[in-house]
Amino acid sequence: MSPPEQDPPDFTLDEVRREGLLAPAAPAPVAHDGTGRVDLLFSVEQSPGAEPSLRPVRVPPGVSVFDAASWNGIAIDSTCGGHGTCHKCRVKIDGPPPPITRHDERTFSADQLAQGWRLACLVSAVHDLEVAVPPLTTRPKAATVGVGRQVILRPAVQKRYVELAEPSLADQRTDLVRLQDAVDDLELRCGLDVLRRLPGVLRGSDFKVTAVVVDEELIDVEAGDTSGVRRAIAFDLGTTTVVATLLDLETGTPMAVASMLNKQQPFGADVISRISATMLDPEALERLRTAAAHTLAELAAEVCQEAGADPRSVYEVALAGNATMVALALGIDPEPLGVAPFVMSSASFPSVTASDLGLTVHPRAPAVVFPSLGAYVGGDIVAGMLATGMDRDKRTRLFIDVGTNCEIVLSDGDRILSTAAPAGPAFEGGAIRCGMRAADGAIEVIRLARQEPVELGVIGDVEPKGLCGSGLVDAVAELVRVGLLDSSGRFVTDEAAADLAPALADRLTKVGEERVFVLHRPAPDTPVAETVYLSQRDVRELQFAKAAISTGWTLLLEELGLGHSDVQQVLLAGSFGSYLSPAAAVRIGLVPTLPTLRIVSAGNVAGEGAKMVLLSQRERAGAAALLEEVSYVELSDRPDFNDRFVEQLSF
Amino acid sequence: MSPPEQDPPDFTLDEVRREGLLAPAAPAPVAHDGTGRVDLLFSVEQSPGAEPSLRPVRVPPGVSVFDAASWNGIAIDSTCGGHGTCHKCRVKIDGPPPPITRHDERTFSADQLAQGWRLACLVSAVHDLEVAVPPLTTRPKAATVGVGRQVILRPAVQKRYVELAEPSLADQRTDLVRLQDAVDDLELRCGLDVLRRLPGVLRGSDFKVTAVVVDEELIDVEAGDTSGVRRAIAFDLGTTTVVATLLDLETGTPMAVASMLNKQQPFGADVISRISATMLDPEALERLRTAAAHTLAELAAEVCQEAGADPRSVYEVALAGNATMVALALGIDPEPLGVAPFVMSSASFPSVTASDLGLTVHPRAPAVVFPSLGAYVGGDIVAGMLATGMDRDKRTRLFIDVGTNCEIVLSDGDRILSTAAPAGPAFEGGAIRCGMRAADGAIEVIRLARQEPVELGVIGDVEPKGLCGSGLVDAVAELVRVGLLDSSGRFVTDEAAADLAPALADRLTKVGEERVFVLHRPAPDTPVAETVYLSQRDVRELQFAKAAISTGWTLLLEELGLGHSDVQQVLLAGSFGSYLSPAAAVRIGLVPTLPTLRIVSAGNVAGEGAKMVLLSQRERAGAAALLEEVSYVELSDRPDFNDRFVEQLSF
Repeated sequence: MSPPEQDPPDFTLDEVRREGLLAPAAPAPVAHDGTGRVDLLFSVEQSPGAEPSLRPVRVPPGVSVFDAASWNGIAIDSTCGGHGTCHKCRVKIDGPPPPITRHDERTFSADQLAQGWRLACLVSAVHDLEVAVPPLTTRPKAATVGVGRQVILRPAVQKRYVELAEPSLADQRTDLVRLQDAVDDLELRCGLDVLRRLPGVLRGSDFKVTAVVVDEELIDVEAGDTSGVRRAIAFDLGTTTVVATLLDLETGTPMAVASMLNKQQPFGADVISRISATMLDPEALERLRTAAAHTLAELAAEVCQEAGADPRSVYEVALAGNATMVALALGIDPEPLGVAPFVMSSASFPSVTASDLGLTVHPRAPAVVFPSLGAYVGGDIVAGMLATGMDRDKRTRLFIDVGTNCEIVLSDGDRILSTAAPAGPAFEGGAIRCGMRAADGAIEVIRLARQEPVELGVIGDVEPKGLCGSGLVDAVAELVRVGLLDSSGRFVTDEAAADLAPALADRLTKVGEERVFVLHRPAPDTPVAETVYLSQRDVRELQFAKAAISTGWTLLLEELGLGHSDVQQVLLAGSFGSYLSPAAAVRIGLVPTLPTLRIVSAGNVAGEGAKMVLLSQRERAGAAALLEEVSYVELSDRPDFNDRFVEQLSF
Repeated sequence: MSPPEQDPPDFTLDEVRREGLLAPAAPAPVAHDGTGRVDLLFSVEQSPGAEPSLRPVRVPPGVSVFDAASWNGIAIDSTCGGHGTCHKCRVKIDGPPPPITRHDERTFSADQLAQGWRLACLVSAVHDLEVAVPPLTTRPKAATVGVGRQVILRPAVQKRYVELAEPSLADQRTDLVRLQDAVDDLELRCGLDVLRRLPGVLRGSDFKVTAVVVDEELIDVEAGDTSGVRRAIAFDLGTTTVVATLLDLETGTPMAVASMLNKQQPFGADVISRISATMLDPEALERLRTAAAHTLAELAAEVCQEAGADPRSVYEVALAGNATMVALALGIDPEPLGVAPFVMSSASFPSVTASDLGLTVHPRAPAVVFPSLGAYVGGDIVAGMLATGMDRDKRTRLFIDVGTNCEIVLSDGDRILSTAAPAGPAFEGGAIRCGMRAADGAIEVIRLARQEPVELGVIGDVEPKGLCGSGLVDAVAELVRVGLLDSSGRFVTDEAAADLAPALADRLTKVGEERVFVLHRPAPDTPVAETVYLSQRDVRELQFAKAAISTGWTLLLEELGLGHSDVQQVLLAGSFGSYLSPAAAVRIGLVPTLPTLRIVSAGNVAGEGAKMVLLSQRERAGAAALLEEVSYVELSDRPDFNDRFVEQLSF
């Protein structure tokens, strides 16, 4: 087997010393005081005998050497995922000799121990250390998810095949203790349901069983060796669209993906109308919960069927959604989310099961529900922050999820702030005359006066039927660029139009009393086609939306004492963000004025985050830590909000 | 209010010094090394100005002064049960000044702090200390349960009435955090069900609510102040009889008691026949589980109705039963308990709810299920050990629960051993010709040749119908005493009988081919009456049973290097033990040869233990600790068992 490619650039030892990336080894290193960071220098031997490449890494003291490597995408042999059981994560430590554990004694000769060989998962990095990593003998299990992030596979779902000694009068250990003793690196907890199954399964399989463990909870005991079969489903529970991804936890790869419209649609298109529904009808909450449950259950059935996977082999699910979607799916009254002061029942949901969500996967599968930072910065955003590494990247980055409610996160590599901006329905096509959802027939790209006066990109390459959010931004940006809209957002006079853009001037006309710009006129013989135009009021809607958003990130930048040019990357998230043209976003002021290369469409980051927490316990801990690390900034009670908003109205 | 009576004798300081109960105060006490015990001398002021009485106490270092007092029945003012919130448990410490907490600062003046006043629940006893306890201002909440043990009320079920600040844009704490912050001495955990109720209850009651907490789990939030209403039910789940006691956790007093026959009776009278039922019929387990559930549910309904208590105000239940009864009630396959090597699925059951037991009390009420030490030393025995203080008393004590299966526990004040002896059905009247259960008409006491040749004590004072276990023991003991049975357990010849006991000789006769002793001959005109007699085979049954039991305790005594006379107390437990005459038990060798005053009928100790764990978290921890403290001795694989058994056969 060939060793894996190391993705970030490596350094030679000389380069490291020259660059000052590591201090020269001190003559007598002392134990770390528990604060700050320790420096580890991994020297990774790509293949036997090759010159090792060097990777400097800084981690909090106390982290295991194995984890320090994992976090930084450095692969070390392991099949148990760092639990001290596979005895494969052999490294040679140069530095103060770490304590020798009983696992080390079983793994290494006395000579090797004296040379510094240890199991990486059992060495705490409390000093600066140099760590030699031998070539891999197994292909590392890692998956690239999120925005190019490599996640070392270490799912919370673990399976252990064990062959237990049969009980005797001399060994009357209880069934549970017998199993616990065989899996003694975990502190197995066991609920009543599993205990009910345990005696029968053990005796029906000659005491050869596979323990199914999720986060130290024994959720099942299966007869024989089923250790190769571990699956999980990641859900992105959107207000509009719900996506499910079935993951093979053995390899980290998706087995099937499916999506459908949220069955809550009949209660309203956005979160506010669904919250209103529960306020008007006491039975609506239960119906909304059921609708969410049916959506998730149908998708789960679909991905399992597509992959030919037994639903009972799905041992865990993850759910990323905004605070309202999560509350509705869990059957929690969402009313306090919908009215000031916008209060959540709880930020996190520790003890939810897949069956609580109405899923018929493994009956005791837990559900990881992403916590929310606020009523309008929900679990979908936390998942997105995880997927984009907002908590790890040292650059100053701005994350914007554009929608009816727009979530904004700003990190300067140290502090992380988040807020929500009420952008209104412009981006969903809601309050726009010819607005429509980003579906077949929606104009999503517009270029004025290139080869033809008006070039349109239409979803599905069909006759245009309307204008979706990204088309709206494009239309306004282009009209501002060619001068048909002035910086206050008003269409110019017919005279000025004829002067500025003669090829387009005839499209500036009126519908009723309102000035409009016609984007598409159907050919005369088209049967049911419609004229698609942009009205003055549409421009105002967008103007208000973009002002709300840019006020949001402007205030966050000020909070951290930063200007536009300090922002090194803007991530546009959500399905809308994926379609939005970076240039248009800059031109209308939706994002800070930056080179368009710095503006990245991050795609469905909520779904990626949901996958990551299933693949890696480390990432899961990171998601939980975000609750502490991110400060939520409430804009609606800021006295300066309205002034700033007015400032941001102009294009 | 008058101060409570202190039950154990108190000492004056002089007596204490003279008796050497406490070492004289060292000039400079040093912090304890964490092992062994610390000595506390409580000086309890019974009424203002009265001479304080002194109570020396030894506890493990690190225990709070409040707990040290609680454990020893010394009442200190408290309404929060030692949680640092009521600020009532004021004591004056003489010894190295303990650290001053923020609660102390709020409670005492600087002068008082300098004098050594502290809150007892916040002082760790790490040094030998003298503790002055002022007179009580509140009536102590304590209950006498078990064998004269005083338990200071500190239930796991707690209620806290809180008036929360309403949310605002400046205070967007989640509903759960708002509540957690108001109850900040507890680390409240909260499941999905409670979270579903939380937003509605808070807003429906102007944020004035009562949190219902069991062991830091928030099981409910109730509108308004319901803090005065806390109940629990203790169940003694016997193979034959099930007893329920509804407890008022505010006062520690029983509100109602009810009992009924276990509805599993149709599946067999003893545990082995019920286990066999599950082995013959795959559906029997579920039917047995349901039968147990119906028994418990009917009793719960009955005690609630009798006391006029809302079943939803029952926030916790406790269940003591033998390992088989518990397995069946929980729906766990009992087969491995019934066949060698007699293995339990698990010794303890941490996450059981009342609803798992089929109870319709509070829907999220937890169930404390007593752990078992072995397949035949079950949770009922652990409860009995708790109730009799087997783990605390420094005397050498033998605890015997006599029944079809007989459980034996021996403590020398340091080590505790337990074992089970298969006594067979003699004591339940099962294999005895005229045997019957201890019900109306059963002969339970027999005296030969006092005023009349045969004096009988009959349950219900009715015409005798049969012989129950205690009557069987009495009959054999009396026949041995008068010489009609020889020490090998054989009836003497008619000639010998006429010689030894002329007034009784005519009762020694035959039924069929078997020699019998007639205990009761109905008067000629009694319509359906029966002759009650003791047969030679009956004597053999009892002989085997008592040999099994005495072999058990003989081997335990040998294990600890003790003889009969070292035993300071024998506790006879279970409903059978309550009826058994101590003198008869000694005479037939069922218990060691001791003065009868040292042989105590302990009554229904399993039920008492179940009450104790509901009244006191401390006692609950004690029950769990017994699992570690008690060694289980398996007799059936001991090579010397059979020899010992034969030795013990003679009377």
